Parts: sequence; structure tokens; C-alpha cells
Amino acid sequence: MSQEYPSTLLERAVSEFTKLPGIGRKTATRLVLHLLRKQEDEVESFSDSIIRLKREAVYCRECHSISDNEICPVCANPSRDHSVICVVENIQDVMAVENTMQYRGVYHVLGGVISPMDGVSPSDLNIESLIGRVATGEVKEIILALSSTMEGDTTNFYIYRKLMQYDVKLSVIARGISVGDEIEYADEITLGRSIVNRTPFTGKTI
Amino acid sequence: MSQEYPSTLLERAVSEFTKLPGIGRKTATRLVLHLLRKQEDEVESFSDSIIRLKREAVYCRECHSISDNEICPVCANPSRDHSVICVVENIQDVMAVENTMQYRGVYHVLGGVISPMDGVSPSDLNIESLIGRVATGEVKEIILALSSTMEGDTTNFYIYRKLMQYDVKLSVIARGISVGDEIEYADEITLGRSIVNRTPFTGKTI
Repeated sequence: MSQEYPSTLLERAVSEFTKLPGIGRKTATRLVLHLLRKQEDEVESFSDSIIRLKREAVYCRECHSISDNEICPVCANPSRDHSVICVVENIQDVMAVENTMQYRGVYHVLGGVISPMDGVSPSDLNIESLIGRVATGEVKEIILALSSTMEGDTTNFYIYRKLMQYDVKLSVIARGISVGDEIEYADEITLGRSIVNRTPFTGKTI
Repeated sequence: MSQEYPSTLLERAVSEFTKLPGIGRKTATRLVLHLLRKQEDEVESFSDSIIRLKREAVYCRECHSISDNEICPVCANPSRDHSVICVVENIQDVMAVENTMQYRGVYHVLGGVISPMDGVSPSDLNIESLIGRVATGEVKEIILALSSTMEGDTTNFYIYRKLMQYDVKLSVIARGISVGDEIEYADEITLGRSIVNRTPFTGKTI
């Protein structure tokens, strides 16, 4: 099959692109040849932006979202309500909730959900640091905004059990979002309403 | 809108990815965050493969396909028939024809088709060098394998007029491929058959 590529350099670049999610060989070839037609400084800028992100971006000490500094812009913002924490799976979910313009609290990025099938246990996620934040006594409410899947429900329940001993209100976002869908792809109106209409968490998975 | 990205490094990398064809902001964010989760050496390998391709890959002196050396593997192969040249739009098309395993001649990559609407004139394409190859008298047949679009037909006709004075057989690949479709996406059987059933070019656009 490698015979088909007239250049090993091209083949290598295409093979690197096919490692990205949802990118097959034809798409990878088109993307790579598109870059090849660009000026060298544009290709350098593309290449440099990725390597700089990897080398220089850090995870926020408070919420584990990606950040240029030790503390992300949301956690560093004094006008945000630091007594309300919205718990999300990943950074895309932070951006999705931010886009709704319905939320003035802060975040906590778990880095995934509990999934024994995929080998993800609670210790692989940022759950201890969430409990640490609650243990300071400065947090009034935790809003669980995980995907409405079995893994999301399991994670909600795990966090509920861990936080039972603390005097903190626990909510889940309203299930306006269809069951099985991912938070990241919800439309802004539905996601925004689900933040406003959050309901007390009773430990049941609905 | 930039408010939404918790990191300027992330935002920059996402914005570089959205410059690629068919990559919107959500896809770009997913791809970039996927890379961010990789080890640094993997990200370096990705980044390096693109920049090396841009800096080190050259275009074959003969056929203008991409190559690691001055002459591409097809042109350098003595068992290929150098008296038959298949004229294609781009490098993907070379790979598509190679994949059919039906062709033992060599190629000539035009780098596009004549398209006044897009500002592509004959002088922007590798047409002069094609005529130069024919002028050596060593070429018996030219197979035109351009997309069956108006621009492809115009380019076929332009090449036909330019080559009329030479003693060379001019063919177009059989139109087994539906009109309006791109060569690059044709299935291998159809594309292979269209190479075998090529018909003499009469200067008419069918």
C-alpha cells in the first residue's frame, strides 16, 4: 500500500493526520496537500501553534481547565461566583456552558467520567480535588453537568456519595437534553435552560 | 467570542486548524484537544512531519508529482512505459490512478485545470512542460484524465490544440465516471475501467 505514496514525507504526514479522531486517509491526504500548497511561514505557524500549546499550556490549579497561566481566566475573575461549581467532563463542556451566557459560577473539569468498561476509575479523574474545594467550606452549590449516559449517572452518584458529609447543595442540570446525547453538542438555548432549571440531586439516576 | 477560549494558546491552535478545508470550530477544538492529551514526543512527531514535508519534499522534475528526490519513484522506474503519459489535475489523482493497478505509463500533474472564474489561466498550470515532453518525440500517447467538468473539458481542449502539431495519440479516459464527479473520489473499479477503455480525443467535449 505504501507504494501508492510518491513521497515518504507525504506518507508520514498523512499517517500522523490519520491518528486524529474522525480523520481517514483520504481526508488526511487532502488536509496535508492543502498545507503543502501554503507558504512556508503559514505551515510553520500551523506547526508551531500545536507544539506551543502542548509545551506551554497548563491546567488551571483550581478547576483543571486549560489555561495560559496557573489560574484560568474564569477562576481568576473576581466577579464570578466562586461558591457555585459546575462539574463537567472536559474543556469543550466548559466552553459550551460559557457560550450559553447563563452561568456566573466557576467550573471543575473531571477529565472524563467513571467507566469500568474503558478502564476509567474514580482515581483517574479530578474528583479528590473537587472534594478538597468543597472541604474548604466556601462552596454552597455543586452543579453536575455530565453527559446523561450510564457513565455520567454513575459519576454523579459517586460524587453524591463523596459529598454527602458536607453541607453543600448538589444539583444536576435539567434533562432538557435528550438522553444519550453529549453535552458538547447541545444547542445553546437547551443547554442554557438546563442550567437555569437545575434540580436537587437525590442520589437516583432518574 | 474569544472570551469563550480559556487559553490563547488553545485558541490559536484551533484557529490554525479551522484554516484547513472542511474543518469547522468544533471539529478543530476536538482535534486540538485530542493532540493536547498526547505525549509531547507524539505531538512533536505530528508537528515535525508537516514542517519536514513542506521544507524537504520537492516536485518531480519530470511529472511535477510530489517526491522525496528530483525524480519521483514512478518516473525513475525503468519498467514503467515512458512513452505513455497520463495527464492529471493533482497528486491525489496520481495516487487514485496508481491504486487501480491498471496503468503502467507515467504521469503529468497539471496542478489544476483552466478556470477563468477562479483566475486559473493556462500559464498557471504545468502545460508548457507537458508540451516539452511531447516535443522530445519519445511520447506515443497522452491520456487525459481530468475531472469531467466544464473546466476539465476546457483544459482537455486547450491541450488538444497545443498538441495537434505533434505526432502523438491523444485519448481521454472513458466516461464511466458520472459527469460532475471528481476523479479523486471515483471507486477503483470504475476508474480502472475508464483507463482501459479510453477513447480517441476528437476535440469535442462529448
